Amino acid sequence: MKKRDIIESAIVQSVILKDDEDALVLLDQTLLPAEKKFLKIKEMKDLWEAIYELKVRGAPAIGIAAAFGIYLGTKASTAKTYEDLYTDFKKIKEYLASSRPTAVNLFWALNRMEDRFKKEVGKPPQEIKTALKDEAEKIRQEDEAVCAAIGKYGLSLLKPNWGILTHCNAGTIATSKYGTALAPIYLGEAENYNLKVYADETRPLLQGARLTAWELKEAGVDVTLICDNMASIVMQEGKIQAVLVGCDRVAANGDAANKIGTSGVAILAKYYGIPFYVCAPMSTIDMDCKTGEDIHIELRPDEEVTSKWYVKPMAPKDVKTYNPAFDVTDCNLITAIITEKGIIYPPYVENLAAIFRS
Amino acid sequence: MKKRDIIESAIVQSVILKDDEDALVLLDQTLLPAEKKFLKIKEMKDLWEAIYELKVRGAPAIGIAAAFGIYLGTKASTAKTYEDLYTDFKKIKEYLASSRPTAVNLFWALNRMEDRFKKEVGKPPQEIKTALKDEAEKIRQEDEAVCAAIGKYGLSLLKPNWGILTHCNAGTIATSKYGTALAPIYLGEAENYNLKVYADETRPLLQGARLTAWELKEAGVDVTLICDNMASIVMQEGKIQAVLVGCDRVAANGDAANKIGTSGVAILAKYYGIPFYVCAPMSTIDMDCKTGEDIHIELRPDEEVTSKWYVKPMAPKDVKTYNPAFDVTDCNLITAIITEKGIIYPPYVENLAAIFRS
Repeated sequence: MKKRDIIESAIVQSVILKDDEDALVLLDQTLLPAEKKFLKIKEMKDLWEAIYELKVRGAPAIGIAAAFGIYLGTKASTAKTYEDLYTDFKKIKEYLASSRPTAVNLFWALNRMEDRFKKEVGKPPQEIKTALKDEAEKIRQEDEAVCAAIGKYGLSLLKPNWGILTHCNAGTIATSKYGTALAPIYLGEAENYNLKVYADETRPLLQGARLTAWELKEAGVDVTLICDNMASIVMQEGKIQAVLVGCDRVAANGDAANKIGTSGVAILAKYYGIPFYVCAPMSTIDMDCKTGEDIHIELRPDEEVTSKWYVKPMAPKDVKTYNPAFDVTDCNLITAIITEKGIIYPPYVENLAAIFRS
Repeated sequence: MKKRDIIESAIVQSVILKDDEDALVLLDQTLLPAEKKFLKIKEMKDLWEAIYELKVRGAPAIGIAAAFGIYLGTKASTAKTYEDLYTDFKKIKEYLASSRPTAVNLFWALNRMEDRFKKEVGKPPQEIKTALKDEAEKIRQEDEAVCAAIGKYGLSLLKPNWGILTHCNAGTIATSKYGTALAPIYLGEAENYNLKVYADETRPLLQGARLTAWELKEAGVDVTLICDNMASIVMQEGKIQAVLVGCDRVAANGDAANKIGTSGVAILAKYYGIPFYVCAPMSTIDMDCKTGEDIHIELRPDEEVTSKWYVKPMAPKDVKTYNPAFDVTDCNLITAIITEKGIIYPPYVENLAAIFRS
């Protein structure tokens, strides 16, 4: 095997459609980083549970899983006509929607599966079932293509032997493959870029420590785990040449909402003169959202800060905490936004609008 | 009791010389924040253990404890002459020095006790023992006066109802009373300033969560615990009007070494236009150290980042980490340095030198 192929096969895929067995092979992310265990799912009920219990996480990965869930559920139907199958489909869709009601991508995928169902109007059930399986795989492939394109554009901004800082997890296991922020890194690894990645641990939920450090290590990438408050010293010491982060939502002016702490990393990067790149699939750019001020920041429970993970109490009992899940990075701190359609530079108001017209 | 007295008595003191019992009453800091337990120490061996086992921590508190240890050890001597007592004293000093060989303040205190011993040259053992006890209490009182002065100067820079961010623990329990960075807050509380303190948890060792949040809560101060990466959002949301931090060493040009993450907080404060104050006893200003580049940064073990505190593995096994204990904050990011001799503003090269001449 060539180096490129070795690396390609080392990149973890968290959701794989196994055609010959009619199954979804799914990485149980709740066991990370202690254990790498794949579940083979052939029943819709098991898929519902996997989503509900967060065994699958990451917006694209959840969408793919749910789409395949639609196929598994519909396949089990004994309906003999298009109309009867559609009646069953609606129930299946409603059931899967209840697995994680706050996941936007879940609904997007379920709606897309319904669109496909309707496109097959009047066809016999067996053909519709095959079409739904095809649609689920199409969703997976499209996501992989989006990630690969972001990776290609992102890599064009990097140079061999660079140090890269990343925050939270926008990696392969959150998507079909490659991830968003980590896609340029995986592609660089295949091209012998020898990048050195510094992963912020990302308190309070430690996605950087549990997921990013794990998946990069698994693929043989040179990764170093740091606490969030060490980002400044690694930049100061010249260890970092670029920052790559994912995002949850980009506003029309370029403000980007991402995991709590991202805005702080962006300010440090600006201070040290290091480029700060947001990797954003077009689907995360929300042109109806004018600026970051329109983005609601979720506040999460105290216990994530005070006691979750810990053996003994690490904060005083009943201490007050402030625990926002996300923050907004001001567009003036973002060097460029990397999408599957290309790299977008400031001024963002004009250039984001332009890419939607193109 | 007046409000001032109530607050004064609520401020935790971690080392108290109990004259009537010839004992040192010492807060067992290893039990924090779960339990508030004081040890009454009457034997030098127990004091050695308390220092060795980190039950007492914080440079000034360790110095005070060691000084009292000299008294306890010497008191137990049966020497009949000055010379014989001095022979015993040397052994006691050596023994106590072995309790924590890296603690600079420990040696400073032991040497100061030896100076006092020598000052009492020729006097009978009983008088020397009394003199040593007196010297230990003097060290404690001087430290309290230093902290109170820093508190007074620091408070002059704050306004009622302000939000204050702090990092790590430079509080009352690290000193005889008040602390350094927290002294202005305690003094403000007594003056009805109604300050709202945000405490960075300070990974990896969580001094902010375990110690700062605890001691402020204990004294009735309004404290909110945040993860280190939330400092940016609380500043962005207008919750913070000043940052107060302690420091381990200040160079002659004003660069300040302090707990890892401090430089990042300073950069955020600069970006958001918030004053950033370093509270530094004169003893931490090292005029022989030209700039921060001369300060050696200690690198600490992986396990503090990957597994300490955690119930289950929170990072991949054998993942590489980078774990510096301190960082250096560039003097251009420091609004002022608050000492017991007054507030020092830039240019620091001139103004730090001037305060040493004054």
